Amino acid sequence: MRNLKIIVEYDGTNFCGWQIQKDCRSVQGELKAAVYQITGEEVTVEGAGRTDSGVHARGQVANFRIAKSIGTFEFTKGLNAVLPEDVRIKSMEEVDESFHARFSAKERRYKYYIIQQPTALHRMHAWYYPHTLDLEVMREGCRQILGEHDFKSFCLVQAEVNHHRCEVRKADWYDEGTFRIFEIHANRFVHSMVRALVGTFVRLGNGKLSLEDLQHILEERDRRTAGFAAPAHGLYLEEVIY
Amino acid sequence: MRNLKIIVEYDGTNFCGWQIQKDCRSVQGELKAAVYQITGEEVTVEGAGRTDSGVHARGQVANFRIAKSIGTFEFTKGLNAVLPEDVRIKSMEEVDESFHARFSAKERRYKYYIIQQPTALHRMHAWYYPHTLDLEVMREGCRQILGEHDFKSFCLVQAEVNHHRCEVRKADWYDEGTFRIFEIHANRFVHSMVRALVGTFVRLGNGKLSLEDLQHILEERDRRTAGFAAPAHGLYLEEVIY
Repeated sequence: MRNLKIIVEYDGTNFCGWQIQKDCRSVQGELKAAVYQITGEEVTVEGAGRTDSGVHARGQVANFRIAKSIGTFEFTKGLNAVLPEDVRIKSMEEVDESFHARFSAKERRYKYYIIQQPTALHRMHAWYYPHTLDLEVMREGCRQILGEHDFKSFCLVQAEVNHHRCEVRKADWYDEGTFRIFEIHANRFVHSMVRALVGTFVRLGNGKLSLEDLQHILEERDRRTAGFAAPAHGLYLEEVIY
Repeated sequence: MRNLKIIVEYDGTNFCGWQIQKDCRSVQGELKAAVYQITGEEVTVEGAGRTDSGVHARGQVANFRIAKSIGTFEFTKGLNAVLPEDVRIKSMEEVDESFHARFSAKERRYKYYIIQQPTALHRMHAWYYPHTLDLEVMREGCRQILGEHDFKSFCLVQAEVNHHRCEVRKADWYDEGTFRIFEIHANRFVHSMVRALVGTFVRLGNGKLSLEDLQHILEERDRRTAGFAAPAHGLYLEEVIY
């Protein structure tokens, strides 16, 4: 069997998320159906990150195994021809048998887009937040989450995970054009962590929380301390590092 | 009567264009309805450019007259609250009685976005063109259209216009992130001129036309010489200068 790694871009707007679920449209399900349509093979598509409904991806990584000997260029073209327009395979390569999109991943990179002016064009791709944001304070807050911490306070769904420890390697707020962007790299993320962090950072930048409050929330390891999560449609899975 | 100037952003995807037409959804119609909902006044909304179906705007300018004395900040907020999400008023100011969004305009600025990689996220906001484009040659071609010319070859609809002379003040192709952008400023544009120009420039950059061919098309003043127009969904009305 050949093990194929793909990099996938999708617009999360009309998906219930990455993962196959009953009675709803998933990216994983669309990819599986497309592979079947081209090869006649039933595959399991493993993704690096299980993005929620509304969350976008510029660089989701997935892998699956097929028997058919079809060139990667031709296969990519064929899949993109049968896939719906809101999912595109950006690249494909044959990888080692041991490669697993989820378990082999060393680092995930997310970006969260905020727009402060009323917008029609970016309404499904950035969070419209019209209130004051002090990026200097938010940047200072980023230093507090750098390194290894227990992010239980920022885990929205109390799933049966072993632990909530994540090593944050980069966390920054910056402006790009009309967007205010939060970029975060970590070895792993707990459920909805980026959105919960953005919700908290926004209250920090708006003066509703202090840097001490942020420290307290982080140390408390209690979901109730962190407050609301930012909406899904501002979030992008940018890249996965192996 | 107070004369109000507004700057409008819209996502052209689900509109039949700027102008009110029978049995279809127009930006002008949505604005008129919103003004009526807030003020109870029937207004005529004049726009600077009549964008086609699918064409977007970051800086369409319009004006209308109302009797009601409502503050511009409050009025903008009220209009944005009742307008559909794909139209947003970015700013509003009270202007001189003589101001007319269309007739007072001194210059229109458009951008056309091309993307060369398969894309899910930008599928309705940039034209996916996967073939070779030599931006150097296209930039040289831009010099040929600078200045005042008769653009009849690039006028898609043979409407009853007085003339096809336009003064192009800026024309350039450049890269911005994953986009290849055509930017053009002119005192006026004939119907579908930017899309017809992009269609021709793309054939130039792809080696199907030479710089001499471009010169010939321009001088011929015959629509049939210019060939296909680029699709509407890559085009943005960026700004109008008064």
